[in-house]
Amino acid sequence: MPSGQTSFQDLQTPALLLDEARMTRNIERLAERAKILGVTLRPHLKTAKSAEIARRLSGDVTGPITVSTLAEAEAFHAAGHTDILYAVGIAPQKLTRVQVLREQGCDLVVILDSPAQARAVAEAGVPALIEIDSDGHRGGLLPDEPALVEIGRILHAVDNLRGVMTHAGESYTVRGDAAHAEFAERERSAAVKAADELRDAGLFCPVVSVGSTPTAHAARDLSGVTELRAGVYMFFDLVMAGIEVCGLDDIALTVLTTVIGHQPAKGWVMIDAGWMAMSCDRSTAGQNVDQGYGLICDADGRLMPDLIVSSANQEHGIVSLRPGAEGPLPNIPLGTHLRILPNHACATAAQHDRYHVLPAESGPMKTWRRFGGW
Amino acid sequence: MPSGQTSFQDLQTPALLLDEARMTRNIERLAERAKILGVTLRPHLKTAKSAEIARRLSGDVTGPITVSTLAEAEAFHAAGHTDILYAVGIAPQKLTRVQVLREQGCDLVVILDSPAQARAVAEAGVPALIEIDSDGHRGGLLPDEPALVEIGRILHAVDNLRGVMTHAGESYTVRGDAAHAEFAERERSAAVKAADELRDAGLFCPVVSVGSTPTAHAARDLSGVTELRAGVYMFFDLVMAGIEVCGLDDIALTVLTTVIGHQPAKGWVMIDAGWMAMSCDRSTAGQNVDQGYGLICDADGRLMPDLIVSSANQEHGIVSLRPGAEGPLPNIPLGTHLRILPNHACATAAQHDRYHVLPAESGPMKTWRRFGGW
Repeated sequence: MPSGQTSFQDLQTPALLLDEARMTRNIERLAERAKILGVTLRPHLKTAKSAEIARRLSGDVTGPITVSTLAEAEAFHAAGHTDILYAVGIAPQKLTRVQVLREQGCDLVVILDSPAQARAVAEAGVPALIEIDSDGHRGGLLPDEPALVEIGRILHAVDNLRGVMTHAGESYTVRGDAAHAEFAERERSAAVKAADELRDAGLFCPVVSVGSTPTAHAARDLSGVTELRAGVYMFFDLVMAGIEVCGLDDIALTVLTTVIGHQPAKGWVMIDAGWMAMSCDRSTAGQNVDQGYGLICDADGRLMPDLIVSSANQEHGIVSLRPGAEGPLPNIPLGTHLRILPNHACATAAQHDRYHVLPAESGPMKTWRRFGGW
Repeated sequence: MPSGQTSFQDLQTPALLLDEARMTRNIERLAERAKILGVTLRPHLKTAKSAEIARRLSGDVTGPITVSTLAEAEAFHAAGHTDILYAVGIAPQKLTRVQVLREQGCDLVVILDSPAQARAVAEAGVPALIEIDSDGHRGGLLPDEPALVEIGRILHAVDNLRGVMTHAGESYTVRGDAAHAEFAERERSAAVKAADELRDAGLFCPVVSVGSTPTAHAARDLSGVTELRAGVYMFFDLVMAGIEVCGLDDIALTVLTTVIGHQPAKGWVMIDAGWMAMSCDRSTAGQNVDQGYGLICDADGRLMPDLIVSSANQEHGIVSLRPGAEGPLPNIPLGTHLRILPNHACATAAQHDRYHVLPAESGPMKTWRRFGGW
């Protein structure tokens, strides 16, 4: 608990708490890895959506970043960032907003995987990375598809081919460092192979960009890669803990909630954090340990063994012992503050418009705003 | 498509569209039912979170409403509403904000189900309804629990007993009018029985409040009930269609999205609406027909048979034919606008800060702001 003037005990609940010391430790961990691997880190800000956090990711400067919406690009450019990758396949209708940011001095780069997109982007004079599919997860071309070089030529002709990028979203579905290292190698080899195909065709391909939080922490070797992307690593969450990328005590985000009732016959404690505060994300349901809508800690952040948010309505959560756990349910009186570790930090944070920051050093709490929308 | 000056074709996607004609039809349907049943309708604004919509629910006046957060109570009071039920069990820490609103002339009433809450509320001089459990869904006392009269006495002693309320959340899990009518009768009989228990003990119990969207539409008789609550009825959604409370063409909310890519070998169309735009809600997964993250319509709102959002990442959706559907996948080029019917209107709307309103009459689109937070 912070020793400053403003305690989170005074906050209206539910509220999103950020443990700054844990976040700093997570940031330093991946920064160190990127240094050892010899690549530039380009953090994905879709999770944080905060200018204050963005600066902390790159040594208090406005470094290279990745975003998932043009609203993020605009907000981070306004906060001083000038090197931004918009890592969602570009729709032609969005190029006007991209051009406006570029004219304002922001080196905003888009991604694409089709000749139709490449023609629209070339006409708009916007630089792009070609998206490569390294794991069958989502978008992108296989490195040996003929469209790769066709797209490369369209962009190269107007000096807008910046390189290639890939993201192994499937790495979230496997557990343990060795499995993640395999996906990291898939990312590396697919991206490097695609870059080689382009270069063999006489095209310029300076950027080879890879990454996801699991692969970024597990990669053994990134030869040929120029930059590494990851997003949720700054906060971590129960999904990342479930696949052993972090421990539970690395998770920097919690939702502060208050006990609003009991159903003793059912073993339920009612809280004021439902899916509106936690999100509807149930990603741990498919993992070894289903954490419901989140794992319960006391107000000081100490885990309360086997207590989970087993059910959620819009503004109600039901806390109970996880199935099979030995009771009894601890006595948690009306008005008690609890903290909930979230399944998926990106989704939970998106339900809130600010972080209440528990400072690393003793001192008052801070409030950092989050961006939203598109 | 609206014929006005501003077409939704000019909107940045993803964007939340509201079909005003459908909403009006849905509003009139339940208003008519409440009239026939002889009860006051107290709409739940947790779904809409919009002052413009609130006025339309009660004949362009600021009528009685229900809210799920104090932030909603504050926003709606600022918009002129003075008769508000805060229908989430009260935490003692929240009573200061309740008192401030009451001092400003807002008749804000809270709910509770324990003597501890009743003592805090009585001390704060705030009126309350006692929550009754009619279906084992969430909070509330059984009508014959001795605590009911104990709580009643605490509140009655300071003239703060307003009555009883119940909500059959379990009615969402059964299908068809007859099944919903049974839950409506459970709500009615539990609430009326509780009111009678209080009255038999010599306590004053003017309000008997019941409701949920399925039961409100199915109730045959509400003798002894004074008011009816419902929330999602103004928009409806795939969950409500799945339990036959509405048809697909009653659903007033859609998310406008743009095609950003294809994976032809997999039968995937990539769109720019992921779970950030749709929410992570997968409530149709437990119904007869799993609608994925939503059902696809063309830009004019016509259903595209068997096309669903089968998978979603933060800002990516994958559209494909539903499992078992006969192909082929229609040709949907890059840049095409589609509209998505949501699983759960409350959750999807909460991901957006405004409604883009397709007007009932021809004319330009309107934009209505939504409230958020706590």
